[in-house]
Amino acid sequence: MANDIPDIVIGRLPIYLRALTHLAAEGESTTTSSYDLGRKLGISSAQIRKDLSHFGEFGKQGTGYNIKYLIEQLRQILHLDREWAIVLVGAGYIGHALSHYQGFQHRGFQILWVFDNDPGKIGRDMNGMRIRNMSELGALVRSEGVKVAILAVPASSAQETTDLLVESGIKSILSYAPINLTVPSDVNVRYTDPVVQLQRMTYYLDS
Amino acid sequence: MANDIPDIVIGRLPIYLRALTHLAAEGESTTTSSYDLGRKLGISSAQIRKDLSHFGEFGKQGTGYNIKYLIEQLRQILHLDREWAIVLVGAGYIGHALSHYQGFQHRGFQILWVFDNDPGKIGRDMNGMRIRNMSELGALVRSEGVKVAILAVPASSAQETTDLLVESGIKSILSYAPINLTVPSDVNVRYTDPVVQLQRMTYYLDS
Repeated sequence: MANDIPDIVIGRLPIYLRALTHLAAEGESTTTSSYDLGRKLGISSAQIRKDLSHFGEFGKQGTGYNIKYLIEQLRQILHLDREWAIVLVGAGYIGHALSHYQGFQHRGFQILWVFDNDPGKIGRDMNGMRIRNMSELGALVRSEGVKVAILAVPASSAQETTDLLVESGIKSILSYAPINLTVPSDVNVRYTDPVVQLQRMTYYLDS
Repeated sequence: MANDIPDIVIGRLPIYLRALTHLAAEGESTTTSSYDLGRKLGISSAQIRKDLSHFGEFGKQGTGYNIKYLIEQLRQILHLDREWAIVLVGAGYIGHALSHYQGFQHRGFQILWVFDNDPGKIGRDMNGMRIRNMSELGALVRSEGVKVAILAVPASSAQETTDLLVESGIKSILSYAPINLTVPSDVNVRYTDPVVQLQRMTYYLDS
């Protein structure tokens, strides 16, 4: 079943999960509806119902969704009912910001190690983590079976670093490098480039 | 015409632009094809042709696209034939990383000012920019007619800051705060949340 579901649908599930988690934290209600959730997210309620229907029946006509139950289900679907270790590659400004990012906690992820190839950085501390030599990456990632990496290196070394990550067994890469990476078909890359997102919005600006 | 084009199509144009800009920088060829571009990006050539066909005829069967011409056209379509001033709100770790980000240059954007409300940060230098008091934001943004903002404040003050940005005339917001923001329909928000992107990938991981 899993492979038949469009990736764009999968991409909306974490957004639903985030909104539901906020609702649960607010604690005002134990249930919500596709209408309320849709209004909160700027997504139509029909879209939300359709997206969720790929995975089963989560709500009842009239009573809506039980927030806690839907959170649990989404976490299972997205394989977040465990904690994923992340290797962070690159101890520059972005790596530094990521090491301080509070949002990983309780959302399924933890940065396990940080690597860099700059002799001036190796061995130093970054927010409580020792910056490790890139030369250690392969053996460590393999030994722990780490599957998830965040790439925060310059564009010029991004492909080379990606090749090393892939060889070491990494299957999911979130890249901050502003280039398109080539990976085998069983490896998933997502890109985060603030300019690409800004450019998508200036289309709608007139002056 | 503009409003009939799905936002998902608009979202791919910056990706095409980025790949074409790399091709132009490599300088190996003056033309490319939807097939080559698609292979580079992991997008089907049919999709690329269909996306571009919304905006006119950019290539010829057999000879492909002139890279420089297509870059120019995409920059016009996305309103990048000018430079957009950005206000950056939040001088924390993410703001710091953004102030050092090289990718804004030559891609249509420049951070004009940075704001924070922390008295310990106001007046200090961040990569050559003086951190300004949030209380100055409204008047400055209005006086210069700035339309684009990057929000890098904690979740707890994100909505309040967004309201201030919207009141001041901001129409496009790139948010790093991990919550969904409420804005009027003429304001566009895009979110960048590394965990949402990671969660979209763990769906495909088995163990």
